Amino acid sequence: MPLDPRLLDVLACPQDKGPLYVLDDALYNPRLHLRYPITDGIPVMLADEATTLDDPAHAELMATVERTAAPMTRTRPATT
Amino acid sequence: MPLDPRLLDVLACPQDKGPLYVLDDALYNPRLHLRYPITDGIPVMLADEATTLDDPAHAELMATVERTAAPMTRTRPATT
Repeated sequence: MPLDPRLLDVLACPQDKGPLYVLDDALYNPRLHLRYPITDGIPVMLADEATTLDDPAHAELMATVERTAAPMTRTRPATT
Repeated sequence: MPLDPRLLDVLACPQDKGPLYVLDDALYNPRLHLRYPITDGIPVMLADEATTLDDPAHAELMATVERTAAPMTRTRPATT
């Protein structure tokens, strides 16, 4: 799974309202281990379409995210 | 309108399939001047909900994007 991980807090998980990682083929909520598919470039942010990653799959994804994401892409500068 | 501009080609405009800027409150297609709202963190990527910016509004938005976006946030590294 190619990753293009960015943590964007302009997009929010419909369940816990927190920020999501943007991957090449999904949005990912690292708190609830919820993966929302991106289909033809359109994120499908519906609970019914989300899949829950088990702990090993979550750990693998997060390890890849940590390797791939530059620190500055994971937080946004304060605007206040 | 606060801007958090990133051009993400993992998200695609449903009309021309090209990449979109991620703003604080919208996704923006600079080719068609189409603005898709982000409501409660959920992008609404429906043609019926999109608004078309006129030329002055587009120019103003793009000027802000150019001022705000660091170059590295506007393209992704080649992965091939």
